[in-house]
Amino acid sequence: MGTAQLAAVPEPKYWQLRTVLLRAIDTEFSTGQVIPNERELAARFNVARATLRQALDQLELEGRLVRRRGIGTLVAAPRVGVPVSRREEGWTGSGREQEWQTVGCAIVPAGEKLAKALGVPTGETVYTVRRIRVAQGQTVATEALHVPDSALASLPEIRLSGAAGSGAGPDEEGRAVLRRLERLTVDGESRSVELGVAEADEALLLQRPPGTPVLVVTTQYASAGRLAALAVSTYRADTCRLTFGETGLVEVTPVPEMARTAS
Amino acid sequence: MGTAQLAAVPEPKYWQLRTVLLRAIDTEFSTGQVIPNERELAARFNVARATLRQALDQLELEGRLVRRRGIGTLVAAPRVGVPVSRREEGWTGSGREQEWQTVGCAIVPAGEKLAKALGVPTGETVYTVRRIRVAQGQTVATEALHVPDSALASLPEIRLSGAAGSGAGPDEEGRAVLRRLERLTVDGESRSVELGVAEADEALLLQRPPGTPVLVVTTQYASAGRLAALAVSTYRADTCRLTFGETGLVEVTPVPEMARTAS
Repeated sequence: MGTAQLAAVPEPKYWQLRTVLLRAIDTEFSTGQVIPNERELAARFNVARATLRQALDQLELEGRLVRRRGIGTLVAAPRVGVPVSRREEGWTGSGREQEWQTVGCAIVPAGEKLAKALGVPTGETVYTVRRIRVAQGQTVATEALHVPDSALASLPEIRLSGAAGSGAGPDEEGRAVLRRLERLTVDGESRSVELGVAEADEALLLQRPPGTPVLVVTTQYASAGRLAALAVSTYRADTCRLTFGETGLVEVTPVPEMARTAS
Repeated sequence: MGTAQLAAVPEPKYWQLRTVLLRAIDTEFSTGQVIPNERELAARFNVARATLRQALDQLELEGRLVRRRGIGTLVAAPRVGVPVSRREEGWTGSGREQEWQTVGCAIVPAGEKLAKALGVPTGETVYTVRRIRVAQGQTVATEALHVPDSALASLPEIRLSGAAGSGAGPDEEGRAVLRRLERLTVDGESRSVELGVAEADEALLLQRPPGTPVLVVTTQYASAGRLAALAVSTYRADTCRLTFGETGLVEVTPVPEMARTAS
């Protein structure tokens, strides 16, 4: 019925096997369970080891399987739904199940490119707060939050808690910037999401090898008609599902894969 | 300044080369330009052909390079920003620069999983409209839009334009469903974005091999306190940047890569 022209497409062998394996995983195994080893799987599905490995690699990349040294290959937990919106998170993002943790803060003059992205003169002081986001005990995202000095300047200063002044660490400085941002009146948020790869420093924080696929979320916060902050967050693509709730009227639940292709 | 602990991480050789190549692409070449062949590049950067190929594969996956048979490797165009929001697109999504085109419509009883996702009894008739989205002359997304009969039933029927009745094709049926949806009062949208891979039928429409990385956008539309429609859209991850504008106060512009890691 109108989708007949989409039928039978030539698929590589490993891809066919991936689909068969996915069905087996969904029906025969539960989260955290160890699946049979490569030799057994190759025999069961009557395929070459190389083809099997390609299919397993693919499913690992998709976050459906996890390889653990000395244990074997496990069925991965479903992806974690992480709400992406300042309204839901707040700037400090604490006191929630999914927390942001400040790991550093740099205060440096903006280079040409960053200045352009922030709409400030080159050389203006920019606070860059480095954070990680933890969900279910796992680091799921890292973030660089850039705030130009001119945007912060209008906000009341917050004393560093318990610090004598000079001895405050960079993570404390970062938290002070976030607390000042809590006073900011945000008029609008613009956001984009795209596929990226983890750079070396991000990979280290995410405990993944460099080149791991990530979802890069770029958010521009407007206040009083100008850009007040720019956040670039990188989420682990294998374990995260980003959610954007508008009203909370309906909750997005994971949709079965068949809903994409079912006719 | 607080990011010192993130310094020097061991990176695989191809990954270092990727970063060097990326810088060369950004500074020496422009969009659509053919870069030197593998032999020349391997000599210039003093690396093995295998390492070079791995780095080029990586950059192709990231959508920075495009290989064209008989031409060579070209610098890819920047990703296309595609707004993701019904408010911006409208249901029919026509008359815009970036258009949705209806390619089919299936009218079938909902299976167990789809019924559960839609919150209707198994066996209820569901209209599934198949669409593609075209931006800058290229198919960037495919979509399955599921609408249960009970949600459509409350909306005024729209006559198929110019059709005698029985002879209407499935794409015309699909457009009729979309026109009826235009009368729907949507109280809220919930959305999720995650990384996926193109299944065979999606890959065919996107003109990419099966397994190509895609961004899967799942949207639930609520009307009168119930789920009225469920859209599952798959966007090409190599060429698309999804944008979510809240107010249009600020426009998200592509942010230079350094904004992620600059300290």
